[in-house]
Amino acid sequence: MPTQYFLVSGASEGFTPLNAFDGALLQAGIGNTNIVKMSSIVPPHCQRISPIALPPGALVPAAYAALTSDVPGEIISAGIAIALPEDENQNGLIMEYSAKGERRKIEEIVRTMAVEGMKLRGWKIKDLTSIAVEHRIKKIGAALAAVVLWG
Amino acid sequence: MPTQYFLVSGASEGFTPLNAFDGALLQAGIGNTNIVKMSSIVPPHCQRISPIALPPGALVPAAYAALTSDVPGEIISAGIAIALPEDENQNGLIMEYSAKGERRKIEEIVRTMAVEGMKLRGWKIKDLTSIAVEHRIKKIGAALAAVVLWG
Amino acid sequence: MPTQYFLVSGASEGFTPLNAFDGALLQAGIGNTNIVKMSSIVPPHCQRISPIALPPGALVPAAYAALTSDVPGEIISAGIAIALPEDENQNGLIMEYSAKGERRKIEEIVRTMAVEGMKLRGWKIKDLTSIAVEHRIKKIGAALAAVVLWG
Repeated sequence: MPTQYFLVSGASEGFTPLNAFDGALLQAGIGNTNIVKMSSIVPPHCQRISPIALPPGALVPAAYAALTSDVPGEIISAGIAIALPEDENQNGLIMEYSAKGERRKIEEIVRTMAVEGMKLRGWKIKDLTSIAVEHRIKKIGAALAAVVLWG
Repeated sequence: MPTQYFLVSGASEGFTPLNAFDGALLQAGIGNTNIVKMSSIVPPHCQRISPIALPPGALVPAAYAALTSDVPGEIISAGIAIALPEDENQNGLIMEYSAKGERRKIEEIVRTMAVEGMKLRGWKIKDLTSIAVEHRIKKIGAALAAVVLWG
Repeated sequence: MPTQYFLVSGASEGFTPLNAFDGALLQAGIGNTNIVKMSSIVPPHCQRISPIALPPGALVPAAYAALTSDVPGEIISAGIAIALPEDENQNGLIMEYSAKGERRKIEEIVRTMAVEGMKLRGWKIKDLTSIAVEHRIKKIGAALAAVVLWG
């Protein structure tokens, strides 16, 4: 059961879509770890920390939004939002969203998604936080936003 | 090495496809955990149990089929099947399938997939079990069937 | 933190795309394990070993490229490449690529991807290795190449 989490984002061009994704992970500070994708919960009593340097090669669970594009001039964005409940014994909810479009719009949507998810649970929100990034494609690019669990 | 497993399914409407997927996970009773997708084996001597309440935020390996749609009126279904071998020292096989169409048809296909997978291994089947769910889309919906490993 | 890794590949026909993927995993020798997909790092000091028989049902992190097709006559290929750094305290990088086309071409691309990824890090390459497989579709087929972490 992870005890800490942090938010990161990054964007990059690359030789292929996977290289661009790798570059976005590197810019986010998690490019030398083994990210394992998970659905999308912050455990109760899990503490937010500032991004830290993870041991290279460590297996790290993360919830993330990522998008690649090879359409020059296109703007892509990726964002995640976390809604934390008033009741500290309940978990927080992470939502991910990526799409063509500007950061501000994508971040607004993903925040609304987290609010809707808490409504569905019937839980009141104590805190809503988010991170998002946009990238204008030169040739082949990627945008990524992630919540990393740790500890 | 997990020692227990259980089968769940759920379906839901949602604000976005991811919200609908979140709702389907909630209806299946696993919406407040961190599901990690895996390929698709029941370890030898792993015991089937009734679905249990998992600790919120726990990292839980699962094999699942899931589908979302935003076509009003469309029927979507998701199913999983497990074939267990006669030889108890061998593992069971999980197959996942989701598609447009009614539950009965999708469940029949996924059961055949599990039978075919055991044929490929040259193993005799002692038990074949499955779970599936269908959902008629109102606006945006998701259907999910899962095998959760635990213990 | 895994301490060993090995490379495998496989290809297969199957009753459905997932059955073909299952067959490719079996041919690669990892069809009876629970593969968890990860992004794509060889930890420092991790030792390459020959492929070993894994315990059935074990949860095993792996980076892999896989592709399925149902177009008879089509040739599909999947490959992975690993670039290891001169500095043994830094991690290696895994790249994955799959596409229509012959093995030789896909393997060349994935090797270049690994070289580009090390360039992005500003790290010199000590060793570049790869594995790839091609498959000509009869009816429904899959090709898979993987790096499995273990130990």
